[in-house]
Amino acid sequence: MGEFELLAKVRERLAAPGPRIVLGSGDDAAVTVPGGVTATSVDALVEGVHFDRASATLAQIGHKALATALSDLAAMGAEPGEAYVALGVPPALGESECLELVDGILALAAATGTTLAGGDLTRAPVLTLAVTVVGHAETPAQLVGRGGAVPGDALVVTGELGGAAAGLLLLEQPALAAAVSPASAERLRQRQLQPLPRLAAGRALAAAGARALIDLSDGLGGDAGHLATASAVGLRIDAAALPLADGLAELAVAAGQEPLQLAVSGGEDYELLAALPAQGLDLVRLGEAAGIGMTRIGEVVAGEGVEIRLPGGRTLEPAGFDHLA
Amino acid sequence: MGEFELLAKVRERLAAPGPRIVLGSGDDAAVTVPGGVTATSVDALVEGVHFDRASATLAQIGHKALATALSDLAAMGAEPGEAYVALGVPPALGESECLELVDGILALAAATGTTLAGGDLTRAPVLTLAVTVVGHAETPAQLVGRGGAVPGDALVVTGELGGAAAGLLLLEQPALAAAVSPASAERLRQRQLQPLPRLAAGRALAAAGARALIDLSDGLGGDAGHLATASAVGLRIDAAALPLADGLAELAVAAGQEPLQLAVSGGEDYELLAALPAQGLDLVRLGEAAGIGMTRIGEVVAGEGVEIRLPGGRTLEPAGFDHLA
Repeated sequence: MGEFELLAKVRERLAAPGPRIVLGSGDDAAVTVPGGVTATSVDALVEGVHFDRASATLAQIGHKALATALSDLAAMGAEPGEAYVALGVPPALGESECLELVDGILALAAATGTTLAGGDLTRAPVLTLAVTVVGHAETPAQLVGRGGAVPGDALVVTGELGGAAAGLLLLEQPALAAAVSPASAERLRQRQLQPLPRLAAGRALAAAGARALIDLSDGLGGDAGHLATASAVGLRIDAAALPLADGLAELAVAAGQEPLQLAVSGGEDYELLAALPAQGLDLVRLGEAAGIGMTRIGEVVAGEGVEIRLPGGRTLEPAGFDHLA
Repeated sequence: MGEFELLAKVRERLAAPGPRIVLGSGDDAAVTVPGGVTATSVDALVEGVHFDRASATLAQIGHKALATALSDLAAMGAEPGEAYVALGVPPALGESECLELVDGILALAAATGTTLAGGDLTRAPVLTLAVTVVGHAETPAQLVGRGGAVPGDALVVTGELGGAAAGLLLLEQPALAAAVSPASAERLRQRQLQPLPRLAAGRALAAAGARALIDLSDGLGGDAGHLATASAVGLRIDAAALPLADGLAELAVAAGQEPLQLAVSGGEDYELLAALPAQGLDLVRLGEAAGIGMTRIGEVVAGEGVEIRLPGGRTLEPAGFDHLA
């Protein structure tokens, strides 16, 4: 397999570039006319750290690499624009396998209106993907960082929690599948293997006046802590209000784990957590605009830290991921 | 070493962000107001593939990772703006070593006016750096791709060739250093370990009307071939005109290699190759504007392919690098 032959085959698969692209993949750099404001983020996935080739197809790995990067654009309320992929290919991976991986990236790119505008291809000891994404908005005010939450704001989360952690349990211990229906098991595995960035929800939350926004990559506990620190506020979360993924409770019990703990510390759900003005908040309408359910899970308070309250007055440890641990 | 502690220490080292940055490192994405046109490129360096920790310091590895990415912006004639670094850290690398690496990146960033605006940090089996850089221009016409060369254009190269390949020979076979002066040996090693992106030269060549521009990462032979293919022209290069690095000839002979072959196929010089209108070409003035010598090495002809002519009528094989070979 030669570098330039493979690059040529990748280019044959590319869709027509988006409207901002003046010069796409194949030159020293891609040239774009952004117009307005850009949001840029990079995310890397490494075999053996973020995924296991025994339980994920190459197309799923490609999908997930782009999805995790796009999730950061969702967390700004940005419109996705371009993606750039640095691919490290281990010796055992052949050309058709590389193209399967690229097809997984391109399918999600097409579904989200993202143009694969460039990349780099090199040898590596294990499969490695670093994906840079560029999103767009007309003005800086349309984008939402982590740092604007104020006491009194409502805390809202999209979709459901714990599905990705439950899916990981199922992949690691297939016998657990007996605890849930086959459809639930498949859905939970998909949450782990092929997360969907909440791009429409991010834009809807930003348009609805979200003052702080973050995606849940490290788990609600950890990411809520990042939002609290950046905003210099405290967060009070009602554990009973958390929208748990279907089948999570049964699966956690079968695995000897506490469902809420799994939902709070599992990570990789790639849902969004937003702080919005509580007054006039219409979650039904917001959910319709976003194309996904929205749940109010708590409030922003003065102070610092994240408190996750259980019904009996107990609190949950808001632990998150550490990618170097 | 914890992910978030290390990230906090990296952020403490960052210089004030550039004028285009609205929101820098630390949120889900960096927010910038580009204004005009952007050129974006990504380059990855992998331990054992692109560098060897036994012969390069961590600061040099960080420098080289940013330099190779910025070289692609030089090859567009773009002004450097922002850099985003995905860093894969092997278990044996501690916090102070990670910071040494980051300091290498930041020193070159400061020297080139580049803002480190974001990144990602994760475990990896070997040290891995994927660097995305964003460059800027006012209009698309100010940027130069590979595809515009026309027959009759002069071929011009910046600086000198073969230095990086000679430096690699010295690192691999230290005894060869006896063939050259200590100062030459050190200079050649620096060419390999700490290449300098030709950013001012790229902008000067673009302003002088360059119709095609490429940086020499894969070796003159390979990269000239990319320019020829993209422009649908042939290139005729006079081997006797090539500006060889000081000490290259002596070193090549001591290593039993042909100096010209090393200069043409060695790669990693990160000089620029440009095709410009031959009429009125003033290389002295251009070199002054660029702050680096310029040499006319051949011409663009109708047809295809790259011919590198030796004085006796023989031709050199224009081989280049394949990063998957």
